[in-house]
Amino acid sequence: MDIAARRTADPAHWNLASAIRVLSMDAVEAANSGHPGMPMGMADVATVLFRNHLKFDASAPHWFDRDRFILSAGHGSMLIYSLLHLTGYEQMTLDQVRNFRQLGAITAGHPEYGHVEGVETTTGPLGQGIATAAGFAIAEEAMRAEFGADLCDHRTWVIAGDGCLMEGISHEAIALAGHQKLGRLIVLWDNNDITIDGRVSLSDATDQHARFAAAGWRVLSCDGHDAADIDRALSQAAQDDGRPTLVDCKTIIGFGAPNKADSSKAHGSPLGADEIAATRAAYGWSHEPFHLPNQIVADWRAIGQRGAAQRAAWNDRVDGLSDEARNDFARRIGNEVHPRLNAIIDAFKVQTLEAKPKVATRKASENVLEVLNAEMPENFGGSADLTGSNNTKTGGQGVFSAENRMGRYLHYGIREHGMAAAMNGIWLHGGFRPYGGTFLTFTDYARGAMRLSALMGLPVVYVMTHDSIGLGEDGPTHQPVEHLAICRATPNTLTFRPCDQTETAEAWEIALSQDATPSVLALSRQNLPLLRQETGENLTVKGAYVLREASATPKVVLMATGSEVEIAVAARDALEGQGIATRVVSVPSMELFRDQPRDYRAEVLPANTVRIAIEAAVRQPWDWLLLGERGQEDRSAFVGMEGFGASGPAPELYKEFGITAEAVAERAKALL
Amino acid sequence: MDIAARRTADPAHWNLASAIRVLSMDAVEAANSGHPGMPMGMADVATVLFRNHLKFDASAPHWFDRDRFILSAGHGSMLIYSLLHLTGYEQMTLDQVRNFRQLGAITAGHPEYGHVEGVETTTGPLGQGIATAAGFAIAEEAMRAEFGADLCDHRTWVIAGDGCLMEGISHEAIALAGHQKLGRLIVLWDNNDITIDGRVSLSDATDQHARFAAAGWRVLSCDGHDAADIDRALSQAAQDDGRPTLVDCKTIIGFGAPNKADSSKAHGSPLGADEIAATRAAYGWSHEPFHLPNQIVADWRAIGQRGAAQRAAWNDRVDGLSDEARNDFARRIGNEVHPRLNAIIDAFKVQTLEAKPKVATRKASENVLEVLNAEMPENFGGSADLTGSNNTKTGGQGVFSAENRMGRYLHYGIREHGMAAAMNGIWLHGGFRPYGGTFLTFTDYARGAMRLSALMGLPVVYVMTHDSIGLGEDGPTHQPVEHLAICRATPNTLTFRPCDQTETAEAWEIALSQDATPSVLALSRQNLPLLRQETGENLTVKGAYVLREASATPKVVLMATGSEVEIAVAARDALEGQGIATRVVSVPSMELFRDQPRDYRAEVLPANTVRIAIEAAVRQPWDWLLLGERGQEDRSAFVGMEGFGASGPAPELYKEFGITAEAVAERAKALL
Repeated sequence: MDIAARRTADPAHWNLASAIRVLSMDAVEAANSGHPGMPMGMADVATVLFRNHLKFDASAPHWFDRDRFILSAGHGSMLIYSLLHLTGYEQMTLDQVRNFRQLGAITAGHPEYGHVEGVETTTGPLGQGIATAAGFAIAEEAMRAEFGADLCDHRTWVIAGDGCLMEGISHEAIALAGHQKLGRLIVLWDNNDITIDGRVSLSDATDQHARFAAAGWRVLSCDGHDAADIDRALSQAAQDDGRPTLVDCKTIIGFGAPNKADSSKAHGSPLGADEIAATRAAYGWSHEPFHLPNQIVADWRAIGQRGAAQRAAWNDRVDGLSDEARNDFARRIGNEVHPRLNAIIDAFKVQTLEAKPKVATRKASENVLEVLNAEMPENFGGSADLTGSNNTKTGGQGVFSAENRMGRYLHYGIREHGMAAAMNGIWLHGGFRPYGGTFLTFTDYARGAMRLSALMGLPVVYVMTHDSIGLGEDGPTHQPVEHLAICRATPNTLTFRPCDQTETAEAWEIALSQDATPSVLALSRQNLPLLRQETGENLTVKGAYVLREASATPKVVLMATGSEVEIAVAARDALEGQGIATRVVSVPSMELFRDQPRDYRAEVLPANTVRIAIEAAVRQPWDWLLLGERGQEDRSAFVGMEGFGASGPAPELYKEFGITAEAVAERAKALL
Repeated sequence: MDIAARRTADPAHWNLASAIRVLSMDAVEAANSGHPGMPMGMADVATVLFRNHLKFDASAPHWFDRDRFILSAGHGSMLIYSLLHLTGYEQMTLDQVRNFRQLGAITAGHPEYGHVEGVETTTGPLGQGIATAAGFAIAEEAMRAEFGADLCDHRTWVIAGDGCLMEGISHEAIALAGHQKLGRLIVLWDNNDITIDGRVSLSDATDQHARFAAAGWRVLSCDGHDAADIDRALSQAAQDDGRPTLVDCKTIIGFGAPNKADSSKAHGSPLGADEIAATRAAYGWSHEPFHLPNQIVADWRAIGQRGAAQRAAWNDRVDGLSDEARNDFARRIGNEVHPRLNAIIDAFKVQTLEAKPKVATRKASENVLEVLNAEMPENFGGSADLTGSNNTKTGGQGVFSAENRMGRYLHYGIREHGMAAAMNGIWLHGGFRPYGGTFLTFTDYARGAMRLSALMGLPVVYVMTHDSIGLGEDGPTHQPVEHLAICRATPNTLTFRPCDQTETAEAWEIALSQDATPSVLALSRQNLPLLRQETGENLTVKGAYVLREASATPKVVLMATGSEVEIAVAARDALEGQGIATRVVSVPSMELFRDQPRDYRAEVLPANTVRIAIEAAVRQPWDWLLLGERGQEDRSAFVGMEGFGASGPAPELYKEFGITAEAVAERAKALL
């Protein structure tokens, strides 16, 4: 069907969709950068979705029981900005659309969570949207199981492009969603056959239908420019048959642009004045840029109000709850910190001091989680197939599965990236605090989603065990050396490396108190003694503190984290034994220490001492603590790793790489 | 068929396979750590492969035309160590096997490239082997096309487990291999239905046959414990029908262990003395640990010599080449540096100084590649679907595809991780120097394989463009801030951030001269002026150097990289204009500067000056240059990023984040 025929076939639809297309191409043109082709290609599908299927109320972007709409192909951001403006989201004024991609506007180049109401998650790095959406759908199932369909009964709709489907993370998400039978997850594939480099056939020949079916998905298809056909497919997709659904929407990128449609020329740059004029003519659209006819605006605004009655009914049902149930539900969907968190941790610390456990911090973490999970129904755990090693599963948690939506532990499979993205989605959906485990070295596999946790400000918790050469025999592929530096270099990320069970509990307390910052807990494989000798105040909050005071004014200050604090304490004892006053500073979190007042930092790390930092990792993050003071260059040293690790028993590796109390004491004496 | 029946069905095979199984369980027991179940499960398949199909000669592990054998499920390392020992690889003595996982032994926990002849690539991080194997197979096709099947005619065999197939990177590799019709790539899937957490059904329900078929693979199956059936499947797999092949080998993990087989108990820890005794009984194996009957050893040694005649014939063919052809082939398969590299770069620098181009360093990189690729047939380029943005493709390179194996540019698709792993494989195979492009921020997606480039010491080149907020409107998801720190924190990685076309050419010269270190070129999106005013010596080799001298003894030293060097020069001019002697130091590579003699470093960064570093990224890697000297704390500053970026035009972002010449000059004056 050519454009003219489509215009006349369903004029009401045509006008609604054209408004998206024109706004998109005009905004990209005004910005002189951006991606017009995708919104132009998917405008018909999005129109039918918003007009007939998506449960939402533009006047209440945070309504909990809305359907979630995720633009995984985030470069097509003008699609969502157009939809939000047209349906009447208050923030999304025409001025914001006009200022697309300008500094200070909410209409960033890619949709940014927190900048714009109606943007459910940050997208742009391809594949993240679809993988995060799996987390949304998991959380929806879990909340529906816990609170009932009266309170939680919605879908997660995703628009994904070929890029999303080529990225490896899509495999992890698709397999996870299929296995978990996430029947409320619907992916609309913008099947336009174009990537940046050219036709998809340049780089891919995957039969996507067969691929999704192999992962347990239902596969539907439609002509992505035929409103009736789209509506048929979406109606079917909305029926939960126990499988997630892929809808193959056959579209034309840059639909209607006479010289650029169906080519990569329409993908990532403005169409240009001439092509825009020609496209306007093809659309039969005579209005000036950013001028929308009143009737079209009114029709779109009515769509934005479609969900008002549903929302009112939902509000009535919530109002009908008992006070206790309503408050509990409100706390959960508000992602509020559990009121008993501090009390639980305080009691746990008292018990810890009594029991003096010598355990790996990964085991200490399990011990903390045992008491926390027993009281905190919002904790949603998991591991990328290292449950017994990460110590992430606690008694009575139950396994979340298609058969048991009340389980609060998810076997994510060997899917670190998919797990991290799903955790982002679980938090964003509301109702749960997700944590998930893998080995610290596999931060590498999860980085794409971990960065989005930080960028979006989502307080998910990464339980990263086997945090150094202390892992031993598995060897250098499994021994992180640069990963603490990586986590510490990432803005808005709290990196904890606790030295014993008390610091581990304190790190969990801080992590579960966050509302806008993810945490990484770097935990040991090997057993560590209890070093903290008091309970009370959470000292980890300060980032670094005096763990062992010197017998006199310190001549030497030893700084260390995690499993190396034990080494620092032994080195101190050796030095003190030789009459050298030595202080040990534990540094569970550099970020928190950096935030302390200068006076406190100077008190903990006084001037005119020898300073030595000990960490079985690269030096890069330590320079500021070692050198950040007059005269430290010649009087400081780093005892750690300069390269990759090796395979062997952990104690031998520590000796091999010179990370021992003896070496530290010798270095200190040489520097004095 | 039960064990007893299998023992008697084919005793010769049984004995060969049992030797692998027993060595594996005994070595894991001796090490008191490791993974016995996988080698025990795949011993039959591996025996048939080595006995009847793999082209190799144990006396010549580096023979170029050998089949490549890659153990993607690297935790099963005792499988390959057993095979290497049994077939007679000289290095792999019984003592090495006995010392499995001990410090200093070549029998590391996971197979490490460079530690052991016969280990083609480091594996352990799951999925890397299968994705690296795609690179091997690509290189084999390309070398065969270029030099003919007389010189290059071999296969790539992979053993992969469920973990490999769940990881996202496997999707990228499988789709790439299917699209490229890599008919010499054969993956033997150890389909044992077990992961660390338990049965595969805990986390996955993928129909792998359908999944691989969807990606264009041929799918075969066999009973992984029936030698005849395995042989049938492998014979068929070895016939190149223009598709890569998956062989589903149905196996039992920990085969023969009466109480632990077919369970995750056999996966990752020693079986224990009792279970080993019971397993020995089941096998009918009465020999002591590490004692192998002479006949079995002799049979295995004969297998190790199977390929000797093929190798002799190949040697004859190579000897029959003209001197020029033989030398060229030898240089190529030896991965030697091109003899004209330095001359090409020198000439290019002279032309650059004449032309004074104001170009983005990504464009400068393309300009360098144009002249290099014209003369260097070993350069094998590509991009993860950002060809026009990364400027990685040069004229006349041709596109590598199933139809054109002579193409030297690969459209990797939207597969950063798969690209990086394939690049590792292309280098490891021999014949090519791979380089590949994406945006610097998508280092996150490729990290797993980039770390292996560093760990293995492979001089591949990552062309990472759009290296800062200078990317502009695409916003914070696409703006790297921590990625320079990540690359610099990674051992054995050269991170370059050149400031103009001359430094870009010098960085390429260094990168293409490496034999054991990967390089990351961080390149700008935005245009930059030519700042270097001389040709001659490669100054980038020093890592940092005085780019603009102060008019007198410097009071201020400004350090910068890449696009911020221009800002440093402007700040210097402003300060000099106010009578403040200011030096500009360009720092294209911190790693190379760190390796300079202390005297040189002190000369470039003299004591008793104000020091300011300028880089549109996080501060972490700069502390040592800013603070590493008496008295710098109060007299140094960092002008860069403290958090994520934003969406907007690049010049506005630089102003917004305070990275301007004016701000630098003000900071300098305040510190004086």
